[in-house]
Amino acid sequence: MYEVELKLRADYEALRGRLTTAGADRVESRRQVDTYYDAPHRSFAETDEALRIRREEPTNGDDVTKLTYKGPLVEAASKTREEHETVVDDDEALQGVLAGLGFEPAATVRKDRTYFSFEGYTVVLDAVDGLGEFVEIEREVPEAEVEAAREEAIDLLEQLGLDPDDQIRTSYLGLLLAADD
Amino acid sequence: MYEVELKLRADYEALRGRLTTAGADRVESRRQVDTYYDAPHRSFAETDEALRIRREEPTNGDDVTKLTYKGPLVEAASKTREEHETVVDDDEALQGVLAGLGFEPAATVRKDRTYFSFEGYTVVLDAVDGLGEFVEIEREVPEAEVEAAREEAIDLLEQLGLDPDDQIRTSYLGLLLAADD
Repeated sequence: MYEVELKLRADYEALRGRLTTAGADRVESRRQVDTYYDAPHRSFAETDEALRIRREEPTNGDDVTKLTYKGPLVEAASKTREEHETVVDDDEALQGVLAGLGFEPAATVRKDRTYFSFEGYTVVLDAVDGLGEFVEIEREVPEAEVEAAREEAIDLLEQLGLDPDDQIRTSYLGLLLAADD
Repeated sequence: MYEVELKLRADYEALRGRLTTAGADRVESRRQVDTYYDAPHRSFAETDEALRIRREEPTNGDDVTKLTYKGPLVEAASKTREEHETVVDDDEALQGVLAGLGFEPAATVRKDRTYFSFEGYTVVLDAVDGLGEFVEIEREVPEAEVEAAREEAIDLLEQLGLDPDDQIRTSYLGLLLAADD
């Protein structure tokens, strides 16, 4: 499956109101702390890949640790990537595995995220420490449906009063690293 | 923690009887299918490390997938290694993460394993496809207690009528690869 994802800056409170009016369902909120790793054998900045450990603290429920690999872009306009993600029981052991293999923590992104379900898509409102507020609209689809899903996501953003031309293609990690320069 | 582990060839039925007589408790049995990976950036055969996905099928219970990293020997006589292991929810996603990072499946070891608890140690009887029957005695200890734990494991093997001088220091993977040559 491929993840179709579009991201824009957005005012959290204003967009939350418009989502509710448009019939979107608020699913849940959680704190996410993402640690991105450098590889020993290639530069992820150059290959446009990412390896991440995500710790999630849901408003209701237990903390969860996830391991995620994101491959290079397969379709640049929509930021579509191959992605593999699994929940992992033991965060500390996972860190040990990565350290043993020579992967090193490079940067951490912290945010409060609220999920909405809207017309078959997931819409997330993010308040990112040090960066501000954003909206992402995303959906996982088979490769053959990527282009159609991207077009539909653009329509939905317009319904929410946003301008899809304002799309931000840089990851939060990239924005944070740029802000540090 | 460090894993102290000694391994010998052993007749499964004979040793099972002696373990029961000596007061060991049979804990459980399971099928284990271990896939070992090659790394893209170094030769694990040369560095004496291992990266493994283990699928376990317990006699009673659900299948479990574990990710394990074993570091190089820190104490050669007892095969003591630094080890990190965690249960992973999604086997297929984990394979996708490793493939994305450039790790490739190299060899698979299949065995039926029965666990016993004996004097604070774990004793396992293994019937390994293509290799035969073995016993392992193992315990996790802090680094400072490695030598004492190794001495005690040798005593316990002698109590079970085995000769610790027959210790096999080659992994099942190594034995299988040697048998293929």
